[in-house]
Amino acid sequence: MGEKFALLEEKLKEVWDLSVVMELLGWDQEVNMPAGAGEARGAHLATLSKIHHERLTSAEMGELLAAAQAEVKGQRSDGYAPSLVRVGQRKFDQATKLPTELVMELTRLRSLAQSAWVKARNEDDYGLFQPWLEKLVDLVQQEAGYLGYEEHPYDALLDQYEPEMTTAEVAKLFAELRKELVPLVHEIQARADVVDNRILFGHFPEEAQSALGRKISGAVGFDYSHGRLDSSVHPFATSFTSHDVRLTTRYNEDYFGASFFGIMHETGHGLYEQGFDAQFHRTPLADGASLGIHESQSRLWENMVGRSRHFWRYALPLAQEAYPDSLSGVEFEAFYRAINQVTPSMIRVEADEVTYNLHIMLRFEIEQGLLTGDINPADLPDYWNSRMESYLGIRPKTNREGVLQDIHWAIGLFGYFPTYALGNLMAAQLYDCFLADHPDFPQEMEKGEFSTLLQWMREHVHRHGATYTPQVLMQKVTGEGVKVAPFMRYLRQKYSDIYGL
Amino acid sequence: MGEKFALLEEKLKEVWDLSVVMELLGWDQEVNMPAGAGEARGAHLATLSKIHHERLTSAEMGELLAAAQAEVKGQRSDGYAPSLVRVGQRKFDQATKLPTELVMELTRLRSLAQSAWVKARNEDDYGLFQPWLEKLVDLVQQEAGYLGYEEHPYDALLDQYEPEMTTAEVAKLFAELRKELVPLVHEIQARADVVDNRILFGHFPEEAQSALGRKISGAVGFDYSHGRLDSSVHPFATSFTSHDVRLTTRYNEDYFGASFFGIMHETGHGLYEQGFDAQFHRTPLADGASLGIHESQSRLWENMVGRSRHFWRYALPLAQEAYPDSLSGVEFEAFYRAINQVTPSMIRVEADEVTYNLHIMLRFEIEQGLLTGDINPADLPDYWNSRMESYLGIRPKTNREGVLQDIHWAIGLFGYFPTYALGNLMAAQLYDCFLADHPDFPQEMEKGEFSTLLQWMREHVHRHGATYTPQVLMQKVTGEGVKVAPFMRYLRQKYSDIYGL
Repeated sequence: MGEKFALLEEKLKEVWDLSVVMELLGWDQEVNMPAGAGEARGAHLATLSKIHHERLTSAEMGELLAAAQAEVKGQRSDGYAPSLVRVGQRKFDQATKLPTELVMELTRLRSLAQSAWVKARNEDDYGLFQPWLEKLVDLVQQEAGYLGYEEHPYDALLDQYEPEMTTAEVAKLFAELRKELVPLVHEIQARADVVDNRILFGHFPEEAQSALGRKISGAVGFDYSHGRLDSSVHPFATSFTSHDVRLTTRYNEDYFGASFFGIMHETGHGLYEQGFDAQFHRTPLADGASLGIHESQSRLWENMVGRSRHFWRYALPLAQEAYPDSLSGVEFEAFYRAINQVTPSMIRVEADEVTYNLHIMLRFEIEQGLLTGDINPADLPDYWNSRMESYLGIRPKTNREGVLQDIHWAIGLFGYFPTYALGNLMAAQLYDCFLADHPDFPQEMEKGEFSTLLQWMREHVHRHGATYTPQVLMQKVTGEGVKVAPFMRYLRQKYSDIYGL
Repeated sequence: MGEKFALLEEKLKEVWDLSVVMELLGWDQEVNMPAGAGEARGAHLATLSKIHHERLTSAEMGELLAAAQAEVKGQRSDGYAPSLVRVGQRKFDQATKLPTELVMELTRLRSLAQSAWVKARNEDDYGLFQPWLEKLVDLVQQEAGYLGYEEHPYDALLDQYEPEMTTAEVAKLFAELRKELVPLVHEIQARADVVDNRILFGHFPEEAQSALGRKISGAVGFDYSHGRLDSSVHPFATSFTSHDVRLTTRYNEDYFGASFFGIMHETGHGLYEQGFDAQFHRTPLADGASLGIHESQSRLWENMVGRSRHFWRYALPLAQEAYPDSLSGVEFEAFYRAINQVTPSMIRVEADEVTYNLHIMLRFEIEQGLLTGDINPADLPDYWNSRMESYLGIRPKTNREGVLQDIHWAIGLFGYFPTYALGNLMAAQLYDCFLADHPDFPQEMEKGEFSTLLQWMREHVHRHGATYTPQVLMQKVTGEGVKVAPFMRYLRQKYSDIYGL
């Protein structure tokens, strides 16, 4: 290993440590922090992000990157050292485009806006959040300008979460997807009475939900000696090393599904984070290839596994044991259909597999509009509500179940939402490939055995961390880029069966 | 405000932010972190401490301190600006004496040794901890050498926690204290059968303990909208701003006292941290004057208030409500005596007010011995156990109830223990002064009114933060330095009454 590379590695580890510490402060803010501490937390995060930015963009870092680049020349490009140099260079290039003041201000605002959003959401008062959103949009517009783009300012933001993906490509995929989804939703709605989900309502004590979630996430492979599960307003997964991966969920004691599928979802993220190559420890290679790839893992475990008939042959008895009062009498097929009910609904994270992507398309449109100025934050609730009506045929009665439902914009994440839909597409592609290798997996699931799938993902996806860009990884694993067809085939097959289409 | 001072203030705030973030990582490590993440946490803390140390000791910081010094000349020395310059200068001077490598290594080791200590304590296996202690002692010896001292290497360590206090002064105070304590312990032991604490054992559900602790700590003034209470192996209090103060405790479901008095103790610390002048936000003035002063606040609320007869006129009915099965029948006087039973015991944090300081003297001796090399870590359990026998007449049967009971050495805190005993002395002095101003306070307590005491402490102690050194503060508030007499008078009076001496 070259001398300059070794120095670079050390510097990148320090920078990565700082970003990981910011993640921890963010986790703490959502899980533990007293409500009155938001301003101080914002200041602490601003200081960290300033130092992070200064160190990442230092002249020394630039020189070390150039020198290490020369040292690793000729090595296999997906080896540890060339990959770290490449990913480090990408982070350096992105960060050097942004002035430290902008980064600090964004960080400070994120923390304050997050507190404002929590309050606004609790009190269903968009007005409490709007001024913060305005400030954030202004900064994000500046950010896109500094980052630069060829076609659309949104490209600059999207690229941070889904490297090398463009707004135009996403728009094309989404158009194709919508063309197929909308008729499917209509076909299903015409046969809506086939499925009744009332059996999922009852009394589900929080403790029992948490215990069942832990049991099943542990059974599929999440390692609790290197992870935790907590509750927070907005469920998420984060990690500070592969040895400290944290999932959160939220509990609704009247309904079976919310925490269960939420935990399965975050478990998918968590398994990815626990599966990075140990050599990547403390480096930016210990990260997902992209948010889309990350989401492919969460949606895979939540949906392809967690809402499959085979999975519930194993899991339903456990759920019945956990909630004897509410679930003991349910019939298998009725339960399976109930958890797969397709119905237009207000809350994205609780949406079914079929309508989910329509929620994303709405957000994708709005984000572009906010960025270009075509949508004014003051008009957002109306815009949101009328778009919900045109996409899903329903209109939110409150902003809490409308524009205030997601945390993303409050923490400055614009350009992030499309990765959820991309993840759905990629999950279907990856699962197809896996099943081609292991056609017996559905039967294994019935016995509560999940290691074939986990090991396959470890081997083909997890261990590589951020070594490959998402499109390269997809090519390498599935032989093609992101496609709509496998996902639609999966949906068609599953829901034709359930709804008798 | 001078231009250089404004720059200095900003720099000091950034440095303080970093130390506060390290506190948060420490809190998280004890309250939340999965067991397997210790090594990574150590690395993250090492990076933060390196950056903290680099920034605190930068040439720029030195120049700004000198320039700001000149700017504030002539201002009242206990004003905000001169105080911040003085405290900043002290931190700068201390830090510049230590090489960055030593600071990083200490930080890294602390985190690893802490994990080893938790395991060693759980498994009652000193051998698991000994190699870490050896490394820590080695580093702490180096630290004392770098910091420098006139008489004893221990002076250098002590000064970090109790500024301007020397080993010789502590030894003198402790000798005086021991001379009075030992006969008192003997007198009490001769009448041991007057007190029976069996009524404190029963079943005390964790949830009820937590609820009662919250209720009463809230009633005495701890603000939960700017604070939390959690559980951890070793109880402590920490804060990241006056708006985010965190207490921890541990629960024993078989015994009334441990968590209750633990929570009262940490509440005392927490009230101090919540009471700093708002102007000190994000600066090193938002800190205790010393650990001794800090401990005076915790011991005041734990003992002078929390174990007083008047307090329990208010609190016993609440405790009986919380534990109807275990406490409903107890008679007031029997209960009051039980919670004040004096009996030599193994665990410092659970020791009574009279024997407590003997636990401290043992540790004070051992720390000096480890530092000078007169005590070898390999011999520590034996040394500990025989000293316990000579001081308290009892010998630990396990290292878990002996040398492994405290976290301090595992996290590199040497020179810290004496501040506990100093705090006891100062608490008695401060309480005397307060009672001279407010002789009716005991009657107010009976009605659950604590604000007179809290406001007095806010006014005379809390709001000043680290403005004054501890001896100056004591002079200012009580008219004299640290003294043994008020504490012994308090003990004599209280325990003569209880034990009929």
